[in-house]
Amino acid sequence: MSPYRKLEAIFARLNALGEAAGMLHWDMSVMMPPGGAEARAEQLAALHVTRHEMLTDRRTGGLLDEAEADTGEDAGDAGEDEAAAPWRRANLGEMRRRHTHAGAVDGALVAALTKASTACEMIWREARPANDFARVVPSLEALLALVREAADAKAGVLGCAPYEALMDEHEPGARSDWIDAIFDDLAEFLPGFLDDVLARQAAAPPPMQPEGPFPVAAQRKLATGFMTRLGFDFNHGRLDVSLHPFCGGVPEDVRITTRYGEDDFTQSLMGVLHETGHALYEMGLPEQWRRQPVGHARGMAIHESQSLLIEMQTCRSRGFIDFAAPLMRDAFGGTGPAWDADNLYRLYTRVARGLIRVDADEVTYPAHVILRYRLERAMIAGDLPLAELPAAWNEAMESLLGNVPPDDGSGCLQDIHWYDGAFGYFPTYTLGAIAAAQLFEAAKGCDPDIEPGIARGDFVPLMGWLGENVHSKASLFGTDELMRQATGAPLGTESFKRHLKARYLS
Amino acid sequence: MSPYRKLEAIFARLNALGEAAGMLHWDMSVMMPPGGAEARAEQLAALHVTRHEMLTDRRTGGLLDEAEADTGEDAGDAGEDEAAAPWRRANLGEMRRRHTHAGAVDGALVAALTKASTACEMIWREARPANDFARVVPSLEALLALVREAADAKAGVLGCAPYEALMDEHEPGARSDWIDAIFDDLAEFLPGFLDDVLARQAAAPPPMQPEGPFPVAAQRKLATGFMTRLGFDFNHGRLDVSLHPFCGGVPEDVRITTRYGEDDFTQSLMGVLHETGHALYEMGLPEQWRRQPVGHARGMAIHESQSLLIEMQTCRSRGFIDFAAPLMRDAFGGTGPAWDADNLYRLYTRVARGLIRVDADEVTYPAHVILRYRLERAMIAGDLPLAELPAAWNEAMESLLGNVPPDDGSGCLQDIHWYDGAFGYFPTYTLGAIAAAQLFEAAKGCDPDIEPGIARGDFVPLMGWLGENVHSKASLFGTDELMRQATGAPLGTESFKRHLKARYLS
Repeated sequence: MSPYRKLEAIFARLNALGEAAGMLHWDMSVMMPPGGAEARAEQLAALHVTRHEMLTDRRTGGLLDEAEADTGEDAGDAGEDEAAAPWRRANLGEMRRRHTHAGAVDGALVAALTKASTACEMIWREARPANDFARVVPSLEALLALVREAADAKAGVLGCAPYEALMDEHEPGARSDWIDAIFDDLAEFLPGFLDDVLARQAAAPPPMQPEGPFPVAAQRKLATGFMTRLGFDFNHGRLDVSLHPFCGGVPEDVRITTRYGEDDFTQSLMGVLHETGHALYEMGLPEQWRRQPVGHARGMAIHESQSLLIEMQTCRSRGFIDFAAPLMRDAFGGTGPAWDADNLYRLYTRVARGLIRVDADEVTYPAHVILRYRLERAMIAGDLPLAELPAAWNEAMESLLGNVPPDDGSGCLQDIHWYDGAFGYFPTYTLGAIAAAQLFEAAKGCDPDIEPGIARGDFVPLMGWLGENVHSKASLFGTDELMRQATGAPLGTESFKRHLKARYLS
Repeated sequence: MSPYRKLEAIFARLNALGEAAGMLHWDMSVMMPPGGAEARAEQLAALHVTRHEMLTDRRTGGLLDEAEADTGEDAGDAGEDEAAAPWRRANLGEMRRRHTHAGAVDGALVAALTKASTACEMIWREARPANDFARVVPSLEALLALVREAADAKAGVLGCAPYEALMDEHEPGARSDWIDAIFDDLAEFLPGFLDDVLARQAAAPPPMQPEGPFPVAAQRKLATGFMTRLGFDFNHGRLDVSLHPFCGGVPEDVRITTRYGEDDFTQSLMGVLHETGHALYEMGLPEQWRRQPVGHARGMAIHESQSLLIEMQTCRSRGFIDFAAPLMRDAFGGTGPAWDADNLYRLYTRVARGLIRVDADEVTYPAHVILRYRLERAMIAGDLPLAELPAAWNEAMESLLGNVPPDDGSGCLQDIHWYDGAFGYFPTYTLGAIAAAQLFEAAKGCDPDIEPGIARGDFVPLMGWLGENVHSKASLFGTDELMRQATGAPLGTESFKRHLKARYLS
């Protein structure tokens, strides 16, 4: 067996053990009784340590060196189809990337990070409702010091800045100048645009909320109906309930979740459609490479682009709402003007200077992300003492959104990310939003039946294009190259701005 | 760290990975969509291979040698409490047993066994409904050859007969002369006893089946009410639905299942109570040793004794039925004589010369097991050619039960076990039944409030005795020693026979 083939066997087992951990995470959020938490933590830790040992094993490193030295033509076995050669090369690159990330940080630091993030998260859970940022500062300080130590270590081997090394875990290859160019452009565009949108919106009557109660069984039936139409295969997935909706599981068995409130169906429904976008990406990954690193989703920006393409571009479009409004009304036996497509469209495209990221609309969402990106980069660089974080947060909110939080609970304490040690993740939300707009524009340009299809509830044309240009590519290319092949240009803000102008000002 | 302490760390990780596999098995039976099967098989195989490698690693074997050479007094660390010393010695013994089992069979044979049992099971799934034993003979022949090869290999290192080596996986230390003494005694007693019971039963009116429909929600509520009364802690477990009821999960998170039919609640309810018995054993294992081999359930005989003690000894007793009958009636709003305790007791203690093991009552069940034990032992010894199995089966049924199957579907094709490669498991069902009777008799002798407690729905006295004498002992002793400490005598048939006579003839 060639060194490359030996690596494929090692990474197939790593993948299977990682999938096992993924399923246990799903169970933890959806099924597990509270008393199972401690045992579950040990199961996940054992899987994590076992995988880390396999990944950093000297033999794995040696095989990577040998396979890379094979100069390409011998990477696989003789007689194989040429089409697979680029996949094997990209696969080797992804293997190396994982090996580098795992090997950069030693076991003691990994253990310290786990302990510190658990401790900090626990204090944050008390500090947030108490609006007491000072209470969490000491443990966040300790956690941040460890995160910076890990970032420094990774930056050394990856040859990039420490903050970039953290982003690289979620969005491989992400660099600050790339993000800056995109975010600076949006930060310039959005405040004035938001003023215009709000002025226009104020001139129209406010949308009405359909009145419930909306029985959970009827909500679920409506949601699964739309999921099936979009192409979600229930032979390969499930829809369940969890406190925080997410998309989990594995490509052959995708588990998405939502939560229902009997007084409002609109949020849960749109949440399901968002997670369905994530699920369709996973389900569409190429079967042949599913057990290998190259067969995984490209990164969190493209993953988020797929959920936002379904939620924001497709399901909040006027065409979709026209199609869906009567189905919504019939699902609950609703009557009156609140069920008109006109009203539901206004409801689903409502914009507001909200303070809470997770409740934000697509116009204001980038402001929330840009703010966090700038602050967390400064924290990792050591340029922002934690004592100054609340003031810096409020100042940025004022300048980007024109709205200042009355307390830190609706300010710098609102998200779990930092208090859980996750720095470098936030940018992918907005990179995903602009990628979604760019991909959707390109798709419509390629196939004129995509938009009429959506308006009649036929998503085959759209999913066909996404399958061919995004899902089936997995991690064959980097994000910018994937975008270039699919849309003719690297990731940029133009399509997103055109989309916002068309939806909110025309 | 002492060699023993190093082994504890290794076996804690093995335990966590084994628990992960257990949870994935539960999910496979309860949650997984069919399309997830292939990926799940790979996840489980990766966990299995990883654990097998850890267990048979040369370093693990070396540590076992060193720890065993430590002559006991140094097995742990200095300054530890003396009470833990026997646990550490027993733990070391259990570690060695697992290492021996894993190391006796090489990887190629394990892989061949997995493949052959999957293939044989698939053909059996067609052969059973077709009553076509001949169809499955070639693949069962191939599978049996591999099972015998593994049995021979294990027998060599364990120093016992091949069939005993197979039993040892499920019931550590089980030897044929021990089983023979018990089973021969029952085979002598039961046929005449059965005649008497059936004659007596024929003289009374047949029991009436309460009439449904019985909504699933009401059945579930009734069942979980009894579970809670028995001591099942829903903070550490769940009740769900699966095709074949079982008890899975881990001690801190026990997952039991049932299946509901809307036309009959009695079977599902008693099934839940049976699985609750298994669950209470798992939940009662000593916390301090949960991550170590010695902290696991003693073996399948004692495990089955706990489910049968709850189902057969407790919940089919007249005292329990008197207590439960009005609760059952109220759960479904039932009226009429079918809901009288008298009738329900006769229904729950009905005896018949049935052909199907899984539907058998406690009087005839041992005949089903003794038959299988004798036949599978002969197959492993090479004394029973497969072509003669159907005739041998029917002959044994005639002699033990006085009933001959009309076809092999209700004869030698009825159970999955052999066709799945599981030989040596059947005896534990009946060992469990007689252990249940012996433990229950001893418990009642120790605490006179146990029986009155059951009759008023108070299971605290019973569970207190079981917790102290069985659950908390885990694998500290062998089965016979556990029985001796709890009841004053090794496992025997006297209590079981007394129980049957008291229930069915007095």
